[in-house]
Amino acid sequence: MYRTHTCWELTAKEAWKTVTLCWRVNKVRNLWWMSFIDLRDRYGITQITHDPAKSKIEFPDVKSEYVVQIVWEVVARPESMINKDMATWAIEINTLEVKVLTKAKLLPFSIVDEPNTSEENRFKHRYLDLRRRKILDNVLFRSKMLNFTRNWFSDKWFVDVQTPIFTVSSPEWARDYLVPSRINPGQFYALPQAPQQYKQLLMVGGIDKYFQIAPCFRDEDPRADRHSCEFYQIDCEMSFVNQDDVYAIVEWYLNQLIPTLSPHKKITVAFKRLKHREAVDQYWSDKPDLRFGMSLVDMTQDFAQSWFSVFKDTVAANWTIKAMKFENKILTRKEADELTEEVKKNGAKWLAYLCFDAEWVKWSIAKFFTPEEMETIKTKTWATTGDSVLFVADAYDVVTTALWRLRIYIRDKYLNLNKDDLAFCWIEDFPLFEMTDEWKLDFCHNPFSIVKWWAEALNNSNKLEIYSEQYDLSCNGYEILSGSIRNHDPELLLQAFKMVGRGEDEIKQKFGAMYEAFQFGPPPHGWFAIGFDRLLMILKDEENIREVYAFPKSWRAQDVMMGAPWFVDQNQLDDLGIELNAKTKKLLQA
Amino acid sequence: MYRTHTCWELTAKEAWKTVTLCWRVNKVRNLWWMSFIDLRDRYGITQITHDPAKSKIEFPDVKSEYVVQIVWEVVARPESMINKDMATWAIEINTLEVKVLTKAKLLPFSIVDEPNTSEENRFKHRYLDLRRRKILDNVLFRSKMLNFTRNWFSDKWFVDVQTPIFTVSSPEWARDYLVPSRINPGQFYALPQAPQQYKQLLMVGGIDKYFQIAPCFRDEDPRADRHSCEFYQIDCEMSFVNQDDVYAIVEWYLNQLIPTLSPHKKITVAFKRLKHREAVDQYWSDKPDLRFGMSLVDMTQDFAQSWFSVFKDTVAANWTIKAMKFENKILTRKEADELTEEVKKNGAKWLAYLCFDAEWVKWSIAKFFTPEEMETIKTKTWATTGDSVLFVADAYDVVTTALWRLRIYIRDKYLNLNKDDLAFCWIEDFPLFEMTDEWKLDFCHNPFSIVKWWAEALNNSNKLEIYSEQYDLSCNGYEILSGSIRNHDPELLLQAFKMVGRGEDEIKQKFGAMYEAFQFGPPPHGWFAIGFDRLLMILKDEENIREVYAFPKSWRAQDVMMGAPWFVDQNQLDDLGIELNAKTKKLLQA
Repeated sequence: MYRTHTCWELTAKEAWKTVTLCWRVNKVRNLWWMSFIDLRDRYGITQITHDPAKSKIEFPDVKSEYVVQIVWEVVARPESMINKDMATWAIEINTLEVKVLTKAKLLPFSIVDEPNTSEENRFKHRYLDLRRRKILDNVLFRSKMLNFTRNWFSDKWFVDVQTPIFTVSSPEWARDYLVPSRINPGQFYALPQAPQQYKQLLMVGGIDKYFQIAPCFRDEDPRADRHSCEFYQIDCEMSFVNQDDVYAIVEWYLNQLIPTLSPHKKITVAFKRLKHREAVDQYWSDKPDLRFGMSLVDMTQDFAQSWFSVFKDTVAANWTIKAMKFENKILTRKEADELTEEVKKNGAKWLAYLCFDAEWVKWSIAKFFTPEEMETIKTKTWATTGDSVLFVADAYDVVTTALWRLRIYIRDKYLNLNKDDLAFCWIEDFPLFEMTDEWKLDFCHNPFSIVKWWAEALNNSNKLEIYSEQYDLSCNGYEILSGSIRNHDPELLLQAFKMVGRGEDEIKQKFGAMYEAFQFGPPPHGWFAIGFDRLLMILKDEENIREVYAFPKSWRAQDVMMGAPWFVDQNQLDDLGIELNAKTKKLLQA
Repeated sequence: MYRTHTCWELTAKEAWKTVTLCWRVNKVRNLWWMSFIDLRDRYGITQITHDPAKSKIEFPDVKSEYVVQIVWEVVARPESMINKDMATWAIEINTLEVKVLTKAKLLPFSIVDEPNTSEENRFKHRYLDLRRRKILDNVLFRSKMLNFTRNWFSDKWFVDVQTPIFTVSSPEWARDYLVPSRINPGQFYALPQAPQQYKQLLMVGGIDKYFQIAPCFRDEDPRADRHSCEFYQIDCEMSFVNQDDVYAIVEWYLNQLIPTLSPHKKITVAFKRLKHREAVDQYWSDKPDLRFGMSLVDMTQDFAQSWFSVFKDTVAANWTIKAMKFENKILTRKEADELTEEVKKNGAKWLAYLCFDAEWVKWSIAKFFTPEEMETIKTKTWATTGDSVLFVADAYDVVTTALWRLRIYIRDKYLNLNKDDLAFCWIEDFPLFEMTDEWKLDFCHNPFSIVKWWAEALNNSNKLEIYSEQYDLSCNGYEILSGSIRNHDPELLLQAFKMVGRGEDEIKQKFGAMYEAFQFGPPPHGWFAIGFDRLLMILKDEENIREVYAFPKSWRAQDVMMGAPWFVDQNQLDDLGIELNAKTKKLLQA
């Protein structure tokens, strides 16, 4: 046994015992009369001193990052000297022996201070990067969140099922990762983008509540909030639920997770609900950051008769005018110019602004408005003295895009939002269909979501106004959950497929197992999936999702530490019955 | 809300309430005066009756496997009628409404009785197979074992780390599954055979205790105790441990897991320890089934001077004689012939047998032995009256193979072993090196295991007698764990590699990250990995590992339900820069 205790474990219970500890040297400070040595393990840091003049033991030469083994005699402090609040202070220690277990070369970057190096270099030596408290904390937090989550769902009778990692390609959705099969030449497995079909089949099989922290695989280009190769989701499917039942489970989980694991975080917007149409109209986003206001207010009809010709002409052209309140802010001329530049960058010709301040009102566009129009602006935007209101008048897409980007710009530059505020918002009533670029009707998202108001809705003559019971949950501008109530009725499913010009043959070919399973008494069921890594990233204030993985991929989807991906031997390809195609071979020769 | 309660949840607390339940019809029995309907959910089965003459409600026509929604009024039973031991018996129910939610076609096989169909057909409709109590129990048990295991290790301060699923090829070990990279053309990821290097790097990073129920991927041919594509292991690595520390953790875990989850199982052999050499000599197996005796006893030298020429000649030829006691069994002539046939099938020329019974001794080979030789046989095999002793005299490999197979044959045919007995045995002191077919020295198993008795041992002139601190744990004839103490000293590692004619260049090329990491103060560390599925298979008495997966692959590594693997579109291959090779194309055209 190398060690009897870890750091911070020693208390008066160990008094008069001899203990052995294995620690890493954090820092050494040699003064002329004495050395101070900080020792570290995963559990904490402690300092020991070494006085060469008084010491009776041989003290080896130690440097930062060496691993040492120390033998201590634990001595109880006299009663009068005990600090009752700190159990570890009830004792003193007497060093009997110090032994260097392994030595360390000089590290390529500091792990005590902020590392002055590139992300690539950190990732290449991730095993050293992990010694930094911040990264270590992320890894420890992830473990705690895994444990909390699994216990939470297990306690609620959810069954943890490991669905297959080797499955079939579903090119309908994102791009699949493929694995050539050696035993079945010419054929490929696909890694699951999500365990969708399997979890629906579990419902048919009678597992009425399923969950899994499921690895998912999508061959997409990396992004700051999207890890390449694999990512994890808290994946659930439940029988006999409607939308409110699903919401209740998710809110219950988050309302317990956050105070338990991140007590400093506060839920400031507790699960507001916005229809997808409203979210788009008000924020031009299906994942709006609701920690602050600044929703987009449509004022087109309010200026139809305006004396202000720019606005009046916009309305006449069937274009749009939207307003956005900038609360507690009277713009300076310079700031107004800066914001105008921003909207111009995003395609708008002009930014109109109105500051509710005596001085400004005099010479701003206010002079073009009637008192009634001013009143309407105030009422609709809730603006009062001290606020500004910003307008863009243009084509609908231009207006919304420009104001949406301006809203984010103002957030990042002017609003000092509290990172510990969490604003959760359900986005619901997604349209079932959309028009493709070729002006064909197709499914907007998942064709297996149930149609809202059932079969009657499918008869709606405006197919784009048919909604599905599908929902997302956004938090602080990130999408952290998707879900829906499923369409478990094979006839209704067929009807929906037929509306986009796809028939039973296609369903049978692409979703054969599920379509057949639905003939055998499926229960009504619904699902959700929470982006585990993304939620973790928000709770740990990370802006780059890669930092919440112990061993992340780089922005080129590479593991620079292990050198993955890499070239393989010809005989490995031969075994699999594949080869590089001509284009790739040429590329590699170049 | 579709349901307010699940089966077995209703107690007196619900008295005078109206409850809604959603259940599946298990069986309907229509008698002329009344119908009995068994209803089922994951939690249990209950029976309701329907008397058409008395019923005031409209009762729909229900068939097996329909999903129905029932509204009940719960009525408390009079105090005198309550069975205190069964909470659910404190109430009576009054059916108010029955509604069919979904109908079911006739199932392709019975899920109530034993299914009279092929494994392929069951797997094709696994969602129906899951409705069978036995398979459902496996899925529920798996979930419980996942939860128990994760909590157990978390409670002991192990950190759950999800190591990458996309990593680099390691053709040293088994065959890798490869994933072509789209972003890095011509390069491939490999799925991890085990997270070995990552978990060692976690130790260097300061995560002193790591665990994960890790998905592992090896492209091997399927076997009854080996699932194709993916399997799971309880994967651990610990800093500052020696072999006994690792054993203690594993034994502690199993000693708590088994009584908690499978209280009917008894550990009858509690972690015996056998050196690898002993296991091979005594059982010709590194995973012997120790629920029964019948070890192989070497008696070669005891018959060097025997009058029994067959034995004497064997010794003279430098061959081997081994004996095996068949306890409490006097063979009939027919049985002796049958066992002789068995050893002949396995290459031995002859089986000698000696039954310690007055009648037999007269005319058996006993007559060739001196009283001293008879005494030696009894002493060495512990045979007494009523036992038989079986001998094979031949070349070492022939003797051991024949007796090893005979031992299993006798177990399966003659010994009625209790499935609930668990015999655990550590196999340790594996040789570090072996001779390859080309008579070259190479690593026997993992080159990263530490050498036993450290650097001195490497100077041993017989390289095959150098042992490593590597160990397996066997249970009832299955290997359920592997592990070792690691060689964390880069110099000693290099020395070992050099002995098999491999140098620093190769280490750096193949294990570069780890070799470099070891320059920065690695802690001493060790590992084990328990085959999660295999342990589960033993605890659930399954002989086929496929049954412990919710969605197993067939013996052709296929998911026959989803149709995986399958052919993919040409554009998917184009995206990845690969194509089928000429041989595969030709095969597919044929």
